[in-house]
Amino acid sequence: MSKSQRELSLLKSVVRKSDRKIAMIVMDGIGGYRSLERPTTELEAARTPALDRLAKRASLGRTIPAVPGMTVGSGPGHLALFGYDPTEPEHQIGRGVLEAVGVDYPLGPNEIAARGNFVTLDANGDIRDRRAGRLASEEGIRVCERMQAAVSEPIEGVMVRVLPVKEYRFCLVLTGDGLSSALLDTDPQREGVPPLAPRGTDDSVSTRRTMTIFAIAITRMLAAIRDEIHANGFTLRGFSCDPGLESLTSRWGIRAAAIASYPLYRGVAKLVGMDPIATGGTLVDEFRAMFNIWNDYDFIYLHIKKTDSTGEDGDREAKIAAIEEADRFIDQLGDRTKEVIVIAGDHSTPPQMRGHSFHPVPLLIASPVCDVDEATRYTERECCRGSLGLMRACEVMQLAIAHSGRLDKFGA
Amino acid sequence: MSKSQRELSLLKSVVRKSDRKIAMIVMDGIGGYRSLERPTTELEAARTPALDRLAKRASLGRTIPAVPGMTVGSGPGHLALFGYDPTEPEHQIGRGVLEAVGVDYPLGPNEIAARGNFVTLDANGDIRDRRAGRLASEEGIRVCERMQAAVSEPIEGVMVRVLPVKEYRFCLVLTGDGLSSALLDTDPQREGVPPLAPRGTDDSVSTRRTMTIFAIAITRMLAAIRDEIHANGFTLRGFSCDPGLESLTSRWGIRAAAIASYPLYRGVAKLVGMDPIATGGTLVDEFRAMFNIWNDYDFIYLHIKKTDSTGEDGDREAKIAAIEEADRFIDQLGDRTKEVIVIAGDHSTPPQMRGHSFHPVPLLIASPVCDVDEATRYTERECCRGSLGLMRACEVMQLAIAHSGRLDKFGA
Repeated sequence: MSKSQRELSLLKSVVRKSDRKIAMIVMDGIGGYRSLERPTTELEAARTPALDRLAKRASLGRTIPAVPGMTVGSGPGHLALFGYDPTEPEHQIGRGVLEAVGVDYPLGPNEIAARGNFVTLDANGDIRDRRAGRLASEEGIRVCERMQAAVSEPIEGVMVRVLPVKEYRFCLVLTGDGLSSALLDTDPQREGVPPLAPRGTDDSVSTRRTMTIFAIAITRMLAAIRDEIHANGFTLRGFSCDPGLESLTSRWGIRAAAIASYPLYRGVAKLVGMDPIATGGTLVDEFRAMFNIWNDYDFIYLHIKKTDSTGEDGDREAKIAAIEEADRFIDQLGDRTKEVIVIAGDHSTPPQMRGHSFHPVPLLIASPVCDVDEATRYTERECCRGSLGLMRACEVMQLAIAHSGRLDKFGA
Repeated sequence: MSKSQRELSLLKSVVRKSDRKIAMIVMDGIGGYRSLERPTTELEAARTPALDRLAKRASLGRTIPAVPGMTVGSGPGHLALFGYDPTEPEHQIGRGVLEAVGVDYPLGPNEIAARGNFVTLDANGDIRDRRAGRLASEEGIRVCERMQAAVSEPIEGVMVRVLPVKEYRFCLVLTGDGLSSALLDTDPQREGVPPLAPRGTDDSVSTRRTMTIFAIAITRMLAAIRDEIHANGFTLRGFSCDPGLESLTSRWGIRAAAIASYPLYRGVAKLVGMDPIATGGTLVDEFRAMFNIWNDYDFIYLHIKKTDSTGEDGDREAKIAAIEEADRFIDQLGDRTKEVIVIAGDHSTPPQMRGHSFHPVPLLIASPVCDVDEATRYTERECCRGSLGLMRACEVMQLAIAHSGRLDKFGA
């Protein structure tokens, strides 16, 4: 048992009931950094009256998403915030599984999922366009249906399902006994070469059998889309099966809900046992949904995407605007002083870097028992001085649980 | 070997001699928190000229007693301050052992201890009062003597000892070969039901044998106190044996003494090899004792209880007064600038919560080699800014040892 597993099992041994709710608002990629040329971060430059008001009654700190220096994707970043150390081997989630649960496919224990990307192949079978001419979602659905028709018959007793995801992305699911996920990506990661054949990472019977079945399925599906102009080929990545994570309900005795419109976030949330709540997808819908279900859940996670996508575009002004927009919604949480409010990010996305980064992420916890810092704003600098200190993101959840009154005393 | 064990063994490999003394003053439950309604903590509100003077020449920081979010009892809280990670399985100490060593019983490796609570049973044998009418200590001693007389003969070669502790509490010790501590509490944790029979957590020969011996002893002792008005029954909890912790002397080469009048604290100190020093029990006695033995020991731990009990009572003013009282005694340490002075707490006890809490605990280390922070006071806020940072409590001891000059360089 690893140290963090041991610590968790001690925490679980003292869990008790409480009525205090926890709302965890994840502003994706919220963190940024100052440079001499840009002496304010986006959080500092934004007008954020609601976050300022929360900060004045909260404890602040910063999270390291996984390990110091490591830049994480949204999957590990979110897993950590939900309390699952993304560096533990049993917490590694394959891309295929994320896609499957993201489109609400109820992945079972005897299933293997892979993420598919449509590509455009040239006359030699080499990849000419890795995104199949930025295929529209409707087109993706149509091509998926053609592929599905080609594999409607089971292969050696194994069912094959083709699930459209979004644009040029789809998900392939194999259902059957004795399958293995020990397969390497077929994506060669560049253009001008053909997709790779599926290869195993071990030589077991189940891996070899799974390889064969994928090879047969791939041949049949390729034949079915040979005449497509853009999506006449595909690559497969992240062969994986459900990691069987302990649910938040089993761990903390809480009913948990997720309000996230992007598949990946909803997928991670479902893997840890949250109920996905369907919404129209705008912030208006999402915050309305949160208050609608407020009495039905102990823990509600709400995801805000735009703070990340604007950072990835390198668009500082748009990120500032995204923060200010989020702030107007967060304002509705301001007077919930009897509950636990967590404002966090899964990682930083500084516009200067046009992508995720390793910089620690600002964290805020407001609760009836929080130590009120001397902060006046939720910014990188104020969080740097906060009483929560610099902590691992995978410890945020247990702190939120503690603030909600759900942890009894350990030891005499 | 766990990470912390590995780190400790490296530290031990570079231990050297030094004459510098370490005084560790543990103000039980010292930490508190600010809220909007109470914008100062008790440490901030108290007049503490001695602590202020110390703070001006010290390094400050904060400790997490066990893991973030976890509220600990005084046992794990103290173990951590003495350098033993309370989350390690081999550092878990049963309640029975704590009671036994707390009343200065020299527990041996072939002994099992349990904590006993006298209860009042009604005519049906159900528990009517879980504290036996808040039995006086003299009464407890008398009833213990009656029980001891009933088990003066060994049972299957196993000796049974009944040790009075305080008020309605006693300690039961079994001495003999091949005993097991794998037994569940007989305390049903509520009134209106009878005490439970002793049951094993495994089915081994030694557990079944120990169960039988306890059952016989319980029957004989109950018969002996049947006619008591208040203490006509009892429950047993925390069956346990000496965990065999490495002593501070073996670990750091120091002679260590404990000045603590409450059994639990003296008990934990003895388990890590400190000599318990008998005192009259007041702070006057305790500080006098500390200076009396100053030249005979390298490390002296002194425990101050009232900062915790006032917090548990929810009495902010009393906690402030307890801090101010402690401060007047700590004043005597102020001019010991050549030694290491550690001011710490085993956990926080905010009056707002009327109990222990998970909030980090203020820490101060003054020594001839400490980095003098810009602090002017020993408070939560100043400690938040301190150069020691936010650390696990089980690392305080090795820092104190380092400040005392007892750690040589590691590596070339």
